[in-house]
Amino acid sequence: MRRLYLATAAAVLTLVSSPGDAASMADVLAASKPSDWRPLDPARTLYLELESGRVIIELAPQFAPNHVANLLKLVREGYFDGLAFMRSQDNYVVQWGDADSKRAIRTAKKTLAAEFARPAQGLPFTQLPDPDSYAPQVGFSEGFAVARDAANGTAWLTHCYGTVGAGRDNDVDSGGGTELYAVIGHSPRHLDRNVTLVGRVVQGIELLSVLPRGTGAAGFYETAQQRVPIRAMRVAADVPESERVPLEVLRTDTPTFSAVVEARRNRSEEWFKYKAGHVELCNVPVAVRRRTK
Amino acid sequence: MRRLYLATAAAVLTLVSSPGDAASMADVLAASKPSDWRPLDPARTLYLELESGRVIIELAPQFAPNHVANLLKLVREGYFDGLAFMRSQDNYVVQWGDADSKRAIRTAKKTLAAEFARPAQGLPFTQLPDPDSYAPQVGFSEGFAVARDAANGTAWLTHCYGTVGAGRDNDVDSGGGTELYAVIGHSPRHLDRNVTLVGRVVQGIELLSVLPRGTGAAGFYETAQQRVPIRAMRVAADVPESERVPLEVLRTDTPTFSAVVEARRNRSEEWFKYKAGHVELCNVPVAVRRRTK
Repeated sequence: MRRLYLATAAAVLTLVSSPGDAASMADVLAASKPSDWRPLDPARTLYLELESGRVIIELAPQFAPNHVANLLKLVREGYFDGLAFMRSQDNYVVQWGDADSKRAIRTAKKTLAAEFARPAQGLPFTQLPDPDSYAPQVGFSEGFAVARDAANGTAWLTHCYGTVGAGRDNDVDSGGGTELYAVIGHSPRHLDRNVTLVGRVVQGIELLSVLPRGTGAAGFYETAQQRVPIRAMRVAADVPESERVPLEVLRTDTPTFSAVVEARRNRSEEWFKYKAGHVELCNVPVAVRRRTK
Repeated sequence: MRRLYLATAAAVLTLVSSPGDAASMADVLAASKPSDWRPLDPARTLYLELESGRVIIELAPQFAPNHVANLLKLVREGYFDGLAFMRSQDNYVVQWGDADSKRAIRTAKKTLAAEFARPAQGLPFTQLPDPDSYAPQVGFSEGFAVARDAANGTAWLTHCYGTVGAGRDNDVDSGGGTELYAVIGHSPRHLDRNVTLVGRVVQGIELLSVLPRGTGAAGFYETAQQRVPIRAMRVAADVPESERVPLEVLRTDTPTFSAVVEARRNRSEEWFKYKAGHVELCNVPVAVRRRTK
C-alpha cells in the first residue's frame, strides 16, 4: 500500500526520516523541552460531550472577557445540556445551541456588547513573517491565531479551522454565547471582526467536521430529528480530575514554536520538491499533546 | 429559530434582502445572463458514484494533459469500479484508489512524468486584485483557481477546497492518476507545484468531506472493512444523456464573475459590519448550477 502519498509532515516523518535535511515539524517537536509546553487551564477549558465523544475547547478570555465569563455561566447553568447542533454547512461551520429558543437562562445574559477586537497593547505576539490577505500583521498570541493593525492599535482573533465563535443576529450586540459555531472548512477570514470569537477546539474537531450536512438554507437541519444532540457541556475544572484529559499546548512565544513555523514555511521532508518559502496563518498548527506526567 | 446567524452570503440574501446596498453575490448571480455560463463538457467530466450519491469532477486538461488523458483511460477501463477510499484525514484530504495494489491496468499507464506547472502564455487569466501568501499572482482561468509567476512564465492549479490531484510517492514522476485525492479542509497551498492536479469537484464534495476519519497515520483506515467503497467511476460522455446531471459553470472571464469577486471582497449583506476589502483565492466560489434548458 502506498502510504506516503501526500502524507502530512508529521506522518511522513514517522514513516521516512530524512537525515541531513533541515528540521521538520516532527523533528522540532521531538526535540522540544518540557518548558516549551503549557498545560490547559481547566478554568478556561470546556468539554463538549457528544455521543461520538468529547470535544475540547480552549477559551480566550484575553480577547472576549465578557463573552467568556457569560459562556462559563451558561455552561455551569447546564444551559447546553440536552440541546443540539442545528446546523452543519459544508466548507463553513457547524453551529449549536437552542434551536427552538425555549431554554430559560438563569444567571447568564442572553446578549452582550460585541467584543470583535481589543487593544494590541499588552498582548504577547509572535509575528508570522509572511504577508496575509486580510490583515496588516498576523501571528500567534498565547496559542491563538491573531491579527493586528498598527494603524489603530487593535488585535483580534481570526477565523481558522477549529475556531469557536458566538453567533449573532444582524445587530452586533445580539450575541452572547447562547449559540456557538466552530469552523470546519477553509478559513472564512472575511468573518474576522464581524463576530466575537471565544476560543478554539484543541481536541475533537474531527467529531464536528463529519456531522451530516444540513440540507436547509445555510446548512440548517430541516427537521428537529436531524439535529445532533449534545449530552452535556462542562467546564473542565468542574469535572473530577480523573475524568479530565490532561492536555498541554505548545507555547507560541518560544524558539521551538518559531522553528515549527519555519518547518512549515519550508518543508524539509523528502516528499516535498518545491518549498513554498511561505506559510499562511491558518496553515500553522499550534501543537497539542497529552501530558505525560 | 435564529436562522441568520453567520449565514452565507447566498443564504442571507435569500432571507433578508438589503435594497440600496451594493450588490451581493446572490444579486450578481441573479442578474447574470445565460452567456455568462458554460455547460460542463461531458468529455472531461467524471462521475464518481458512491453509495451516498454522485460526486462530479471537472477535469483540467489544459493544466495536466497527460494525466487527464491517462485518467480517462483508467476510468474507461473500469479501473476504479469496486475500489475504495482508503484515507480520510481531517482538515486535509480524502484519497481513493487501489489500496491493495492488486488491480491490473490494461490500456493506461501506471506512472507519468509530473505536470506540476505549465507555461502561463496562452492561458486566460482573471487576476485577483489581492495579494496571496503563496504566489506572486493568483486568479482564475476557465473556472479553476490558478497561480502565476511572471519571473519564469509559469502557471499552475492551486490546492483549494475540492481540488482533485493525483497522489504520488517521493519520486515526482511516480503518480499517474491511479490514486486520487480531494481537498476537504483548509487549503493546503504548500502542496502547490508538488503534485499534479487534475481538476476540481463541482458537485458533491459534501459526500467526501464527511467520510469517517481514518485513525491510522495520515488518516488512513486501519482495516479494509473501514474503507468506503466506490461503486463506479464514469466519464459523463459515456453515461446515457438521461442519466447525466446537466451542470453549467460561471465563466470566469466575464464582468459577472468580476462582480462576484467584488461582492466577496466587500460583503454588502446587512449582517456584515466590517468589510474585509480583500478576498483570498480559495474563498472565491466559482458558481455551478443546474442548466434549466
